[in-house]
Amino acid sequence: MSTEQKKFKVIGTRPIRHDGVDKVTGRAVYTNDVNLPGMAHGKILRSPHAHARIKSIDTSAAEQLPGVYAVATGKDFPNLKDKIAELGEGMVNLAHLVTNCLARDTVYYKGHAVAAVAAANGHIAEEALKLIKVEYEVLPSVTWVLDAMKPDAPVIHPDLVTDELGKPGAKHTNVAKHLHFEMGDVEAGFKKADVIVEREFKFATVHQGYIEPHVSVALWNADGRITVWTATQGSFTARQQTAELFELPVSKVTVIPCEIGGGFGGKIRVYLEPVCALLSKKCGRPVKIQMNRADVFEGTGPTPGGFAKVKLGATRDGKLTAGEAWMAYDAGAYPAGIIGPGAMCVFSCYEFPAAVVDGYDVIVNKPQSSAYRAPGATQAAFATEQLIDELAAELKIDPIELRLKNAVKEGSRRVDGPVYPKIGFVETLEAAKNSSHYKSPPPKGKNVGRGVACGFWFNAGLKSSVSASVNADGSVNLLEGSTDIGGSRASIAMQLAEPLGIRAEDVVPKVVDTDSVGYTDVTGGSRVTYATGWAAYEAAQGIIKQMTHRAAELWECKPEEVKFADGVFSKNGTALGFKDLAAKLHATGEPIVVHAAVEPKVNATNGFGCHIADVEVDPETGKTKVLRYTAVQDAGKAVHPSYVEGQMQGGAVQGIGWGLNEEYFYDADDRMRNASFLDYRIPTALDLPMIETIIVEVANPDHPYGVRGVGEVPIVPPPAALANAICAAVGVRMTDMPMAPHKVWKALAEKE
Amino acid sequence: MSTEQKKFKVIGTRPIRHDGVDKVTGRAVYTNDVNLPGMAHGKILRSPHAHARIKSIDTSAAEQLPGVYAVATGKDFPNLKDKIAELGEGMVNLAHLVTNCLARDTVYYKGHAVAAVAAANGHIAEEALKLIKVEYEVLPSVTWVLDAMKPDAPVIHPDLVTDELGKPGAKHTNVAKHLHFEMGDVEAGFKKADVIVEREFKFATVHQGYIEPHVSVALWNADGRITVWTATQGSFTARQQTAELFELPVSKVTVIPCEIGGGFGGKIRVYLEPVCALLSKKCGRPVKIQMNRADVFEGTGPTPGGFAKVKLGATRDGKLTAGEAWMAYDAGAYPAGIIGPGAMCVFSCYEFPAAVVDGYDVIVNKPQSSAYRAPGATQAAFATEQLIDELAAELKIDPIELRLKNAVKEGSRRVDGPVYPKIGFVETLEAAKNSSHYKSPPPKGKNVGRGVACGFWFNAGLKSSVSASVNADGSVNLLEGSTDIGGSRASIAMQLAEPLGIRAEDVVPKVVDTDSVGYTDVTGGSRVTYATGWAAYEAAQGIIKQMTHRAAELWECKPEEVKFADGVFSKNGTALGFKDLAAKLHATGEPIVVHAAVEPKVNATNGFGCHIADVEVDPETGKTKVLRYTAVQDAGKAVHPSYVEGQMQGGAVQGIGWGLNEEYFYDADDRMRNASFLDYRIPTALDLPMIETIIVEVANPDHPYGVRGVGEVPIVPPPAALANAICAAVGVRMTDMPMAPHKVWKALAEKE
Repeated sequence: MSTEQKKFKVIGTRPIRHDGVDKVTGRAVYTNDVNLPGMAHGKILRSPHAHARIKSIDTSAAEQLPGVYAVATGKDFPNLKDKIAELGEGMVNLAHLVTNCLARDTVYYKGHAVAAVAAANGHIAEEALKLIKVEYEVLPSVTWVLDAMKPDAPVIHPDLVTDELGKPGAKHTNVAKHLHFEMGDVEAGFKKADVIVEREFKFATVHQGYIEPHVSVALWNADGRITVWTATQGSFTARQQTAELFELPVSKVTVIPCEIGGGFGGKIRVYLEPVCALLSKKCGRPVKIQMNRADVFEGTGPTPGGFAKVKLGATRDGKLTAGEAWMAYDAGAYPAGIIGPGAMCVFSCYEFPAAVVDGYDVIVNKPQSSAYRAPGATQAAFATEQLIDELAAELKIDPIELRLKNAVKEGSRRVDGPVYPKIGFVETLEAAKNSSHYKSPPPKGKNVGRGVACGFWFNAGLKSSVSASVNADGSVNLLEGSTDIGGSRASIAMQLAEPLGIRAEDVVPKVVDTDSVGYTDVTGGSRVTYATGWAAYEAAQGIIKQMTHRAAELWECKPEEVKFADGVFSKNGTALGFKDLAAKLHATGEPIVVHAAVEPKVNATNGFGCHIADVEVDPETGKTKVLRYTAVQDAGKAVHPSYVEGQMQGGAVQGIGWGLNEEYFYDADDRMRNASFLDYRIPTALDLPMIETIIVEVANPDHPYGVRGVGEVPIVPPPAALANAICAAVGVRMTDMPMAPHKVWKALAEKE
Repeated sequence: MSTEQKKFKVIGTRPIRHDGVDKVTGRAVYTNDVNLPGMAHGKILRSPHAHARIKSIDTSAAEQLPGVYAVATGKDFPNLKDKIAELGEGMVNLAHLVTNCLARDTVYYKGHAVAAVAAANGHIAEEALKLIKVEYEVLPSVTWVLDAMKPDAPVIHPDLVTDELGKPGAKHTNVAKHLHFEMGDVEAGFKKADVIVEREFKFATVHQGYIEPHVSVALWNADGRITVWTATQGSFTARQQTAELFELPVSKVTVIPCEIGGGFGGKIRVYLEPVCALLSKKCGRPVKIQMNRADVFEGTGPTPGGFAKVKLGATRDGKLTAGEAWMAYDAGAYPAGIIGPGAMCVFSCYEFPAAVVDGYDVIVNKPQSSAYRAPGATQAAFATEQLIDELAAELKIDPIELRLKNAVKEGSRRVDGPVYPKIGFVETLEAAKNSSHYKSPPPKGKNVGRGVACGFWFNAGLKSSVSASVNADGSVNLLEGSTDIGGSRASIAMQLAEPLGIRAEDVVPKVVDTDSVGYTDVTGGSRVTYATGWAAYEAAQGIIKQMTHRAAELWECKPEEVKFADGVFSKNGTALGFKDLAAKLHATGEPIVVHAAVEPKVNATNGFGCHIADVEVDPETGKTKVLRYTAVQDAGKAVHPSYVEGQMQGGAVQGIGWGLNEEYFYDADDRMRNASFLDYRIPTALDLPMIETIIVEVANPDHPYGVRGVGEVPIVPPPAALANAICAAVGVRMTDMPMAPHKVWKALAEKE
């Protein structure tokens, strides 16, 4: 495959998405639209304490309430102590997963699920929750990573054997994992530096903020088979997790993925599915549980808060000589591992002769941390990209120029080991530099400024399956296992249509249940358009091969004599378009259906972005207003540019919210106090300018169309870009995320 | 493939059907269980006249009734005059199909649909029907085939160009088709005969009598795509017919086949699907229409009544010398073609040196005739098998012996041309002769007697698709396009399990919608276990091939070095069971999913049956009581013997009902007067003895397991077997079907 951009007829166009009408008319079926005959409604009782031992649970009064069908506690699940399962996306500790669904002996965070009720309706279920008596022994709790790492911190999982603890002489701590990456002679690197910058950064816990609360329906049938309807990013992941928690083979569980109202990484782990199934097993009815917004904030998500101390050295002419990072991320109540990509991304944009990174996954009394668009990378970029900005200022080099001097390119090595193949970071920086936004003079007036920051995400590959069948009218039905969060029905269908010479509209894509398509990994990691799209490309090749054979049968020649190009099968003077041949399939043989499954050998397509922000800070209130914002990103190849732009805009907006406003407020008892969208402020259209986008296309040489995936990168630069812009505007460097008005106001006051 | 019976581990066992629990607990989703948000309920106005011109329809009052969402008439459909479509199962005249759904200018039978209403509920819809004013000009009608063939009969379709009319000088008649088959010198054959028997036979119109009335739901979405939920034997047939009636490409229609409460050939043609779609298009809501029982009798089914005159000649030693048949079957309101298989089957069990058959498809003012289990063959056997019985009596040869002397075998030629491959009719007759029933002395006492009759059905092949994917627990998900009427989920799953060395229970079969599997022809013609099962066998071969490659990768050897036998992959000393290898698939590469599509070159597997009936006739009432009944049949290979037995018993019982009781009663105005299960009597368990079954297995050499299909044959012999038994019991030969008590009583009275 050439790395140059090829000419396409379908790829790169902007057809209306196949699910568009259903989405805008309200016909699309979300999980809460699933209402089955005799269905019970479930509610979950949650812990009022951040850390407590459960002494006893008395459910007898609840069970006797008329209209209550079943009450369940953690003890109704199999005891999965020490059970580890290898799931599609990595190892999962089943003991943690199951006690996160319903606590067994201990609650580890305020909002931790303790018991569940299924009843004739939600009102009765809520009444029943009040009748459940739980005796707690409250234990000391800790929510801030640095506190949790202190020698005198309460140890939250005394029985947790971590990497650290495995070493001789290790003590029990809250550190679930310690990562250490190192390359080159760091000490020597800093000695070579003419300038060294070093700062400490803090970031609050934030939530993915999807609009649709978690909701699941499950039926445990009399034949022992479980059917689950759910809002999930990964139907096969939900299937496996649900099956494993009941120690059942996966084939006993069918997951029907409904439409999803946002996930962003937060709808991968199961929360409700096993609880619905457990209640259904007990009462024999299908059971639906839908969280309310407080449940969502207190019991799901979030993405880690934490701490980072980063140090960079550079020569006078702007070449980086060394980097050093020490990072600690919230794991939440159970090991989460978001520190992993965080530590890998902290120096991933630049060439360092020497660098060292230490990362810590730290157990605290918060909900278990989850992925959130480029998990861990945004926090890391908040640190590194500010220091790069600081270096640029000290060295009096344009911040994009400084980045260009050090930008990673093909052959550059990342601190955690990998060497980049062909990537498009330099081209992205050049595009930013040449953008109308960057070329326009910085905003004029007092308290206004411009900031730039960059971001990186690996983008994943993993396993994807599709099936496709040719209809007599020349259209093609396409089944896919990837749930569609952001328009992937269109982006996958287009990759099938292109080789066949048909229109995107001639493909009928369908996201189907786990019985109806081959194993497919989770929708996440910006992998779907890359990997599932690749499967669709392979399916198209299979269709062409079979139809070539059919044409050869029709023309009584060898398949090798039939040519296919531009949607036309031909042999000497004879020719048949794809649709014309499709119309003849019925009369000439068996139906043409193909299956394609891929697991790309290249599991990282390496996406880079560069954002430019103009802001104005109100010195009276400390409020930051975004005046202009441009996101530049290498998409490899933008299959459907509108949805690439949508991803870039959506990611940027989430990053802006994270950078300026969003955070979990904890009180003295480590309880979250702002678990609603009224008090947890995500940006609205009124808070933002139009996000401008520039798509760069440096084809991924490892993909048939050059696709890299685009969903994660755009959330990475915004907080740093805003911080750099605030610094340019009012001269204060904000190192504590979010850069909320009161913090900016305070920084300004301290400066004066 | 060997024609001998092979040893199997799964084929031939009796596992619990996969859909069993859902069926017995009521969880299975039938179309009437489908209730969509905002769904409208439709009702259909039907003609009170057997034949009339529609002068005008005024729907304005109905449209103004509060709660009415839409009113539709035939003029709302495209005018499809002269449009013919080639559908999966043959040519369909779209002009006939569409005006059968909603009449355009003329009503051709009492119950013909004239207008449809969609409303907030069924009560309002019914009220609205009363407000529709239809002006009719009543035309002369005719329902009896011989009357319809008279020169002075009213010509029902003056514009119908038939085969006959195509000839020079032809006149307009009600004959839609004339078939003529001939072989040998018939005149010479009869001259050689020592005995000639000849009789005329009549048969009433009967209905398939499925328990579930027709019901459909359709949504015409704002993007122009139609989704149909329906009770159908063929989801792809329903898809194509619905699409063609609106002149849409098939890919605009998705048919979701729900569970089906019986079909027997009567749920192939669309009735409600296009009307629901039309109303949905008009009102923007999903629309459900469910027929009541009178709608079902008056508007769907039935299978032809008609007339046959058959003549047989034989030598003194019992060899047939010639046969002659003249047959006329009801087409109903539109050409139906059931005469085709009827004429092909009338002499299909025996070797004739010479034979001639003339068959007529005759338009009458009844609902358009439909298939009903071995369509046309039961009526034909009613004639021929009685004459064979008469010959046996005259020649004083045991009736089974006489049949054995003339039975078709490999190499015998049928009057319509084909030469039989290996068939099992002789073995079936031998099994009947040696059965405990036949070897037991005939029942003793007055008015009791034993009768024997045989039956034949081609059994079909056609196109079938399945997809299969391997789960990590070693189970296999199986998608099929064949709707499951009689246990075919089990019989198909077993054919997948056998080669893989797994249990039937390890396969998870699923009947899916038309977007989710390759094109699959209708469930009918006893083809599903044969053809779709074959596709499952091919899918298993595909899985074995892919897993052999995977094993080779694991063992770092060539695929050719890996052996697979008895569910175990092995290479020298190393071995992995199917499930063990399945568990390793995830870690070693892409998912294993296969697709298989077949269109067997052999499109007739040739099933034969022989039934033995002992009856007692009450001379006071003429009522016939079945004392003992045995069905013997060549299944080729019984994949799931319980379901083969169930098919044999069900078919026999339907044949008994047809033979003894069932018929449409028409009044002087050609209106059906018994359109309810109270007045149209189908047999119940109280009317019948246990039906004994003997499965003969003469493997079909053209199928991997030797399957022939079993659903149709058992309905063919019963009426003739009962007639022969009645004759043996009371000495009257009943040639008018049904042999209802009043007719038998009259025959007895005339005899005395």
